[in-house]
Amino acid sequence: MEFLQQLKERAELVEKAFEKYVPQESTYPSIIHQAMRYSLLAGGKRLRPALVIGAAEAVGCDPQRVLPTACALELIHTYSLVHDDLPAMDNDDMRRGKPTNHVVFGEAVSILAGDALLTLAFQLLAENAKTAPADLVVRVIQEVAELSGSKGLIGGQVVDTISAGSEVDAQTLEYIHRHKTGALFRASVRAGAILSGASDLQLQALTNYAENLGLAFQIIDDILDVEGDSQKIGKPVGSDEKNQKATFPALFGIEAARRKAREAADNAINALEAFGPRGEFLRSAVNFIINRDY
Amino acid sequence: MEFLQQLKERAELVEKAFEKYVPQESTYPSIIHQAMRYSLLAGGKRLRPALVIGAAEAVGCDPQRVLPTACALELIHTYSLVHDDLPAMDNDDMRRGKPTNHVVFGEAVSILAGDALLTLAFQLLAENAKTAPADLVVRVIQEVAELSGSKGLIGGQVVDTISAGSEVDAQTLEYIHRHKTGALFRASVRAGAILSGASDLQLQALTNYAENLGLAFQIIDDILDVEGDSQKIGKPVGSDEKNQKATFPALFGIEAARRKAREAADNAINALEAFGPRGEFLRSAVNFIINRDY
Repeated sequence: MEFLQQLKERAELVEKAFEKYVPQESTYPSIIHQAMRYSLLAGGKRLRPALVIGAAEAVGCDPQRVLPTACALELIHTYSLVHDDLPAMDNDDMRRGKPTNHVVFGEAVSILAGDALLTLAFQLLAENAKTAPADLVVRVIQEVAELSGSKGLIGGQVVDTISAGSEVDAQTLEYIHRHKTGALFRASVRAGAILSGASDLQLQALTNYAENLGLAFQIIDDILDVEGDSQKIGKPVGSDEKNQKATFPALFGIEAARRKAREAADNAINALEAFGPRGEFLRSAVNFIINRDY
Repeated sequence: MEFLQQLKERAELVEKAFEKYVPQESTYPSIIHQAMRYSLLAGGKRLRPALVIGAAEAVGCDPQRVLPTACALELIHTYSLVHDDLPAMDNDDMRRGKPTNHVVFGEAVSILAGDALLTLAFQLLAENAKTAPADLVVRVIQEVAELSGSKGLIGGQVVDTISAGSEVDAQTLEYIHRHKTGALFRASVRAGAILSGASDLQLQALTNYAENLGLAFQIIDDILDVEGDSQKIGKPVGSDEKNQKATFPALFGIEAARRKAREAADNAINALEAFGPRGEFLRSAVNFIINRDY
């Protein structure tokens, strides 16, 4: 599949940058750097950093210009997974086919490793001032922080956590999805576009793209938790039901959920119209997300 | 005592800025904003933000110019306390005379509230671009992230955590103190100075000041945990000994520890020589820290 090759090329840029920016395991205190790298290098798809790069490309920019920011978005995603998996939160033992961070390193180190990944993310966002104007970098930091914060990513996690075990309405479910997944997709795409000097109109179109992509992604995630292959997705299926989590299939049924995902995917594709061939990577990301089985 | 009045004036600037920058309790999702404000507004001394302001004043700058950054440093300090108090970490039930965050809000919300305070801190650091040049703001973000990260504040916490229950040597103790307390003192003073356009020489002197101040502060903290008044310090005394924590008094005895604190305080005062009357607030902070009984 051609998209996977395109994704791999961008993921390789990101992995190489990690070697430059993330302290080696031997760096004192070793245990925290082991824990940070354990989760960061656990074989994620690198979708968010690829979106940062894809947005830069859509605006006609070299990926090198946004690479530290691309890494930062993956660090934020990883920290949120590490903290979400903790016993006090989702209490998950497996992630991407491996024992979760706290199972390997213990809860204390795991909490601190999440904190350190988040902190390093902001260091890398600032680092991007070496290849992009400082005023754009500051704007990106402000936006990424807002979208990752108590009214963004963390807000989604909070509502998800306090809603577990009770019935939620469609509005609450939408809030959770828009914030838990949508916020970082939006932050990734906007960060790549802003650093690349996108016009207001371009930024608006790419934001629209990101929101619909995030929605499609989360619905498919929910569906895979119901009928996916636990080998392929690297964690047990049915965990949402077990934890009585709010999901699209639980609320609307599988078929209606699939229809909603398809609709969001179409909206995402349409939002890219003005970018022509430069929007190719972002365009094929939509099809990948909607058709994935892991 | 004149210093307490000076500190109070600066703390009031900071508290007022919190009202502007930190979401109200009613902001959705309410529970996370309640938890953030609970710990942030629990009556801290606001020493770190006062150091940001004090450094700006030493260089001849208006406190207003560095106010979002001053708030950010207090947010980072507060997040680290919230996470340190968690059952998986120090497992403390009381802080500043009140039940700790997780006792009131539960572990899950408490972890997320810490994450959100840290994230908001970086948003405020970026916000400072409204009153200071963007290139200086980027530099401050980079430094604050580094000093708060896995080789700074979090590094100190990691070594402290993994050393608990076993004997530590003087070198490890110094690492813990230099990073757990020293890093944020250093970050605060440097941030205030950089945003105010300090010269390299001024920055070097203020860094020297901050390191010695941090050392004196931590030694006194250790001593108070042995012979302080639990009413005044707002938490039980003897908790370091209970947790077999590395401390200066445990390693050197109370008298030698007190001598070390005095020496560090003298070094801090000497580092301020070139600043004349503008260094007055930073100077009197030294005496306050060395003589405090809470």
